[in-house]
Amino acid sequence: MAFKVTPWEVEGDIDYKKLVREFGVNLIDNNILNKTKKITGQTHFMLDRKIFFAHRDLNFILNEYQKGNKFYLYTGRGPSEHLHLGHLMPMKFTKYLQDKFNVKCYIQLTDDEKFLFKENLSLEDTKKMSYENALDIIALGFNPKNTKIIINTEYAKTLYNQAIKVANKITFSTAKAVFGFKNSTNIGQIFYTSMQAVPAFLESVKQGKNIPCLIPHGIDQDPHFRVARDVLPKLGYLKPASIQGKLMPGLLENGKMSASIPKSAIFTNDSPKEVKEKIQNAYSGGKETLKEHREKGGNPDIDIPFQYLKFFFEPDNKKLKKIEDEYRNGKLLTGELKQITIEKINNFLEKHRKERENAKKKIDKFLLKD
Amino acid sequence: MAFKVTPWEVEGDIDYKKLVREFGVNLIDNNILNKTKKITGQTHFMLDRKIFFAHRDLNFILNEYQKGNKFYLYTGRGPSEHLHLGHLMPMKFTKYLQDKFNVKCYIQLTDDEKFLFKENLSLEDTKKMSYENALDIIALGFNPKNTKIIINTEYAKTLYNQAIKVANKITFSTAKAVFGFKNSTNIGQIFYTSMQAVPAFLESVKQGKNIPCLIPHGIDQDPHFRVARDVLPKLGYLKPASIQGKLMPGLLENGKMSASIPKSAIFTNDSPKEVKEKIQNAYSGGKETLKEHREKGGNPDIDIPFQYLKFFFEPDNKKLKKIEDEYRNGKLLTGELKQITIEKINNFLEKHRKERENAKKKIDKFLLKD
Repeated sequence: MAFKVTPWEVEGDIDYKKLVREFGVNLIDNNILNKTKKITGQTHFMLDRKIFFAHRDLNFILNEYQKGNKFYLYTGRGPSEHLHLGHLMPMKFTKYLQDKFNVKCYIQLTDDEKFLFKENLSLEDTKKMSYENALDIIALGFNPKNTKIIINTEYAKTLYNQAIKVANKITFSTAKAVFGFKNSTNIGQIFYTSMQAVPAFLESVKQGKNIPCLIPHGIDQDPHFRVARDVLPKLGYLKPASIQGKLMPGLLENGKMSASIPKSAIFTNDSPKEVKEKIQNAYSGGKETLKEHREKGGNPDIDIPFQYLKFFFEPDNKKLKKIEDEYRNGKLLTGELKQITIEKINNFLEKHRKERENAKKKIDKFLLKD
Repeated sequence: MAFKVTPWEVEGDIDYKKLVREFGVNLIDNNILNKTKKITGQTHFMLDRKIFFAHRDLNFILNEYQKGNKFYLYTGRGPSEHLHLGHLMPMKFTKYLQDKFNVKCYIQLTDDEKFLFKENLSLEDTKKMSYENALDIIALGFNPKNTKIIINTEYAKTLYNQAIKVANKITFSTAKAVFGFKNSTNIGQIFYTSMQAVPAFLESVKQGKNIPCLIPHGIDQDPHFRVARDVLPKLGYLKPASIQGKLMPGLLENGKMSASIPKSAIFTNDSPKEVKEKIQNAYSGGKETLKEHREKGGNPDIDIPFQYLKFFFEPDNKKLKKIEDEYRNGKLLTGELKQITIEKINNFLEKHRKERENAKKKIDKFLLKD
């Protein structure tokens, strides 16, 4: 089936194997998992389960770390009115990496990008969204001492001064080939990737020496970082390393969670009742009738409630395996599986919303401003 | 003869009539001159002599002014290591307009542009040049109360926040058509015109209402402002008006003064001896022999020392006419004309360099910084 993955559009049923070939990333393998486990004592379930499934230069990052040369983390997102679970997932993974490796982290909120690529949003809209989204991110437990949030327009002096050095090394041909730009593309969109490249070497600029950078991100953002990896060495910086995550599936039959399709996603401000309804209506791998389900079992591989446990809400591999097995052999019913998922999500969101309130007091400590 | 005029390249013997047609500007006519004279009591010799020879919407600016609706001025330049007389000319004219109309003025120094368009300059180089050039501009007598200097990288937060709104309305097709960009053009160059557009509506942003803007500039910069005039109304701002100046001819037979061809220009840091030598070697409209000159007379129209008097150093129309007539009828010799010019330039530069020293104490009052 046809699918499309660009930094601004994800459509259809993603063939990750094909993406790995096309993008030229490496799969997370047992060597990487073992090395990570050796350093941190454990591996995160999102790595174990190959939700973060691919990488570039992660070996280099781990080797340097073992030599005492710490990296820093950089992730980010294009702001949207409300965050959904698919947005929180890579942030939670990033937080895990930060905790385990005890490293600095930059989180970029690209209000400029969102304005340039979305016709109906003003820059004031996207800036406001960035502040709102920052609260959700902070709510995940980041520490302002080693976590800095960049809202692009609020840090534009610092970013622009570096971005033009990046832009100076990227021709329109390259941007066209990588991002599929046309003659009708606006010149802000064309320039934009330079702004997204900056946090990948910003810590090196600040410290006046090369600090390795590791970027956990959804695989749809890879084109930006492919370009950054090409350009940064020309400016005297290291190529940033990266870990690519899968995109959390939406509630509907196909496609990822999308903030612009409210029915496809569970948002952090969805009420317990809304979550319940959304999960109850989610695409299921269960059989049509109770009898058939008991006899033939369900299919967790295509079952959205199960996938949410796998992607996010059941960190315990053994517990997840039990649910998977019981669902597959028909012991666990669709309604029961949905109930487990609803409870997990609502518990998470209840705590999340409290933390989000607390974040309002802390946000200034996180923001970088010129 | 072939010539080329773009914001980044001026070559050959410029046919201004052809440029007027191609760019679609209007000639400064007697109506405009009379209206200006009525308001300010006099017209500047650079207007009288059609050195500033063309405009867009100057009638609108004057009409609004007469109704009590003041405009503001915006000019600028791409920084270079040293300023030459051709750089100072439009600044001096701008200063005159500011004094006569008593209006605010923004002066933009485009260190980002220079970096993006010149291969061998670092951003640190072009930023340093901007500071140096600012001193020469301040030395012309601008008042920090109503004159603000923008070094782009130092005010990049404010500029970028507005520039992306401009960029959002300019397609690659347009940029390509106006500036002659190619697929090999870098994406910083493609974006850049958005940054140059900002001061044309910045005062309106700051005051929260539309303030007319008048841009005196060398005609080579017109492509930028054509684009700005197209875009700004789409953002709710007025089209900026403009006055186009001719480019001060270089010392050599063809072409304008160019900072990258030292022999073509007189710089503000040239010693009296260097000025003398440069003018003595300048392209002349005099005859080969004294006898022939006395008999047939010289040609002031192609005589560079005479042109410098006309463009810059002899503000008195009657005195200039006398020199012109006497040179044309052979009474004034080439050597004598050159001597007059040398003295005028050296007197100006001596005073200029003193003022430039004083400017070092004042520069911070002029600079806008984020």
